[in-house]
Formats: sequence, structure tokens, C-alpha cells
Amino acid sequence: MSLVVIGSVAYDAIETPHGKRERALGGSCTYIALSASYFAKPSIVAVVGDDFATEDRQLLESKGVDLQGLETVPGKTFFWSGVYSADMNDRKTLQTDLNVFADFNPKLPAAYAQLPYLFLGNIQPTLQLGAQRQMPGLRFVGGDTMNYWINLNKAELVETISHWDFLLINDSEARMIAGESNLLKAAQKILGLGPNTLVIKRGEYGAMLFRKDTLFMVPGYLLEDVFDPTGAGDCFAGGFVGYLAERGFDLRNGKFDVTELHRAVIYGSVMGSFCCEEFGVERFRTLTRREIDQRFDEFRRFTTF
Amino acid sequence: MSLVVIGSVAYDAIETPHGKRERALGGSCTYIALSASYFAKPSIVAVVGDDFATEDRQLLESKGVDLQGLETVPGKTFFWSGVYSADMNDRKTLQTDLNVFADFNPKLPAAYAQLPYLFLGNIQPTLQLGAQRQMPGLRFVGGDTMNYWINLNKAELVETISHWDFLLINDSEARMIAGESNLLKAAQKILGLGPNTLVIKRGEYGAMLFRKDTLFMVPGYLLEDVFDPTGAGDCFAGGFVGYLAERGFDLRNGKFDVTELHRAVIYGSVMGSFCCEEFGVERFRTLTRREIDQRFDEFRRFTTF
Repeated sequence: MSLVVIGSVAYDAIETPHGKRERALGGSCTYIALSASYFAKPSIVAVVGDDFATEDRQLLESKGVDLQGLETVPGKTFFWSGVYSADMNDRKTLQTDLNVFADFNPKLPAAYAQLPYLFLGNIQPTLQLGAQRQMPGLRFVGGDTMNYWINLNKAELVETISHWDFLLINDSEARMIAGESNLLKAAQKILGLGPNTLVIKRGEYGAMLFRKDTLFMVPGYLLEDVFDPTGAGDCFAGGFVGYLAERGFDLRNGKFDVTELHRAVIYGSVMGSFCCEEFGVERFRTLTRREIDQRFDEFRRFTTF
Repeated sequence: MSLVVIGSVAYDAIETPHGKRERALGGSCTYIALSASYFAKPSIVAVVGDDFATEDRQLLESKGVDLQGLETVPGKTFFWSGVYSADMNDRKTLQTDLNVFADFNPKLPAAYAQLPYLFLGNIQPTLQLGAQRQMPGLRFVGGDTMNYWINLNKAELVETISHWDFLLINDSEARMIAGESNLLKAAQKILGLGPNTLVIKRGEYGAMLFRKDTLFMVPGYLLEDVFDPTGAGDCFAGGFVGYLAERGFDLRNGKFDVTELHRAVIYGSVMGSFCCEEFGVERFRTLTRREIDQRFDEFRRFTTF
């Protein structure tokens, strides 16, 4: 099944205790699409500058990512740089140059309009809604946001997520949106805003999925070496929505198996864990579906009692 | 089955965002024994001053706790006071008066010598080992420690835990003992020190059980209101070892089901979660085994995929 992913394509300068990279392919759309590509065909909508490298385009193409919606405009690609703390639980942004991304307003290729799945990466909420309105045949739609929009565009964000099936955020964002520090109460408040499904990522501590009548929790996968956590949350998103697209998950017809949502959280966790094993998107150069399914099985073994 | 629990019996002054208590029954031995009492018969070894209240003794007796090993000596009972941060993830100790606990050197009643299970609460490591040596018929023994002993008595601690089946500590203690920040590597190092089983508590983020050949993980139970986290880790310990005592778990005969250890971690998590629902030990005045088993079933529902 095809899946539209909207967000940033960027170059990142990253420093972790394991080393540094001066200019690595990054951006939410990149990570989500690469991760989802193991399950479904991602069609991306993003913008890059004329400095975007041919080999980066080729990496995406080699994973079957549809690049019709990747616009190239004069100027520089979005650039971000950050440095991680010794335990990698904190990171400091050193530089954010929006460059061509500053004027990003997603315009979907006609070929994308009838696709069934949409993941809206973290961009201004009104732009997210505008993109969604270009896809009238959606079966399952949702996305991400960040503290910046929660602070500055709360009303627009609330309007946008009221049209979503799922919201996929981290725990501090959930607390901010709800204005409530208790996660269970925060989740109930957020479900009251419209999405029928809320997924809360907690980094190394795992993830949770809330619906009005169910709760699902998974601990984090323990890695022997975390090389670089950049993009792990986006890879979680790619695994989550990619798996559901693969399964043809359709919330709208009233016949769906909630266990598929739980498995999607596991696949999200699996993809997030692989992402951390090498710098940037490097792990996806060698990762196979077989490894992914093996780690899914490990999750089952590690949590069965 | 009977279970010996050694540790502190104390009075606590506690302040959380939900209120305060000036003098609440506390101490590791108290929490562990109350929690374990739902599964097995705890026999405690501890010391109190002549200020120890009759009603507190009666609470323990009402739960079937054997108090033969609770020594009363002239002076005051161990007193601790602390205040929790707004999100309750941090606490500051305001006062620690060891009082009669300063000279505690566990001497077991003869009736305890042949009991099969022993949990050594957090006291000086050499005293822990001395207590263990008074019980020649043990089937399963282990305990807890804290940063203070890891810093000051590392050699004695390493000697003591080399005689244990299990070590039950939190994640920062595990990192300190191993001198290794990665939990997976830290766990392997600790298993190399002697215990065949390592349980790492992560508070609201759940718990993990490591053995040479297996890993088990459980997310934390989400509570709508955390009133007071004091004693939650000790209640985890009580549920863990209490359940195994109830099942007659016997690691030494070579025939044991590792799944029982996983279920013990779930019961530990269940007991820790109940502990937080009211101040101090209050929740145990009303808690029933039926509620405990219901929450165990909830854990299964919340983690199945």
C-alpha cells in the first residue's frame, strides 16, 4: 500500500560521544520514509535546495521512495546541527538554518491525491491540514508536532489534530498539549481533542498507545551501543504507519483489529532502535526486513510472562 | 512458604504535592514485609526504639507478619524525612536520624534458621552476609543495596552479592556498581559478580530482569494519581520475592521455570504501583489479593500484541 509522508529533508551536523558527522542526510521526512519503506511504498512531499546531492536522492530511490513530490528550488537545503550529552539523553541544538524549508507549503502531485495513508511530519499545523485536504480518499491519517507549534500555534494545532486518526508525539509534548503532567490524564484529554489513537514515545523507556477503551505499553529495546539517537522518533513513526499501510489497516470501515495497532507500536519501536545503531540514516543502507522481523520476535520474547 | 525479611523499620515524615505526614510507619523492612504478606508469611528481623507504637505493631501482625525478630531497644526508632519535587521524580532528604538503627546487627531467632527464602534489605553489606550465614537451608536469597554502600563499601558489597541468587536494585545503582552507563553492559558485568538473576527497577518506567541467557522487560503501570512514591521500590521487592516464595520457587534443584521469575517481576510492579496510591503504608490497610491479581491481569492485557 502507498503512504504519503510530508516533512523536512535536511542535512544534519551531528556530534555524539561516538563521533561526529559534518553533513549527513536527515530530516523527519527522510527518516520516516526510509523506515516506512520496509513495509509500504512511501511517496514523499518535501523541498530541498539545489545543493541536494545525487547520492542522497539515489538512496531514497533505492528504497522505493516515490520522489515526485520532492521539489528542488534554488537555495540551500534545510540545515540542522546538534550535539548530544555524554549519556545521549539530552541534546543541544547548535544551529538551525531553515533555508528553502522556510517557504515550504506542501503541494501534492496529482498522483498522490487518492492514496490511502498519510503521515504529516512536524511542520506548521495549518500547513499540515492544508496538505491533508488535498487527499480526499484517506483511510488513516495522523502525524507529529513539536513544542514550538504547541507554544505558538496551539489553536491551529488543536484544529488540525481534530481531523486526525492518530497523534504520535513524545511524553513532554503530550504533557504540554494537555497542560497536565500525569500521562494518563493527559492522554484522556488529548483523545478528547479528536484523534481516536494517541501514541506516546518515551525514547529509551518505550512507548504507549492510548484509545478511549484500551491502553498498550511496550518497554524500550535495550541496545548495547547507541551511536546516534537522531531520527529515532521519526523512524518509530515510519515503522508504525508503514506496518499499518502494509496491512491495509482501515479504521473507517468499523472492522479493524486493535491488536494491529499494538503490533504497529512494536514495529515502530523496532525501527527506532535500529536507527540508533549507526550515525544518521546509515543503518538503513544494510538493514533487512528479516532483521526487523527478528527484532519484532525478540520483543515478544522479552515481554511474555 | 515463609520468607525472612531484614531491613529497617522506621518513622517517616513525608511531603508530596498531595500533602504531608509528620510520622508515618515506614522503613524498607516494613514495606517489603507488608507487600510480601499477600503471597507468603514474612518473618522480619529489625530493630525499633521504645517509642514504636502498638498500632504499628498491630498492623504488621494483622497481615500475618512474624515479629519474633523485631527487637525493641531503649531509644528512638529510625527517623527519616523527605520532600518530593512537583513531578515526584525527585526527592530531597531533609533529615536522617539512625537512632537505634545505628547499632543494628541482625541476629535471627532460632525459629528462622531453616526458612527457605531470604530478602536482605538495604543495610551494610557485611551485616547482610552475616545474616545470610545464619540461614543454612536457603533456596533463594538476594537483596538490595544503595549508592552509600556502593561508594563506601564496594569490596564488601561485591563479596556479599557473590553469595546471592538475585540482586534487586534501581538503574542508577546498577550503573554505579558496574561503572558502566549502558544498562545492557552493566547488567552483564553484574551477573559476572555472582548473582544469577538481576532485577533493575526503573520507577515509573518499569523494570527489567536479566539472566545470562534471558532478558525480560515490563513497562511501568500508569497511575491516575501518584500520592506518595515512598516505599514503592521496597514493595516491588516484596511482591517479587513474595510471589516466588508462594510458588515454592527453587533455583537450586535445577528444575525451575524462568517464566515464574517474569511473573514475579509483574507482581513486583503491581505491588509498587499500589504502594503509590496512598501515603506511606496506608494502601495496605485495604488492599486485597483480588485487586492484586486483577492488576496482574491488566498488565497482561496492556502488554499483549
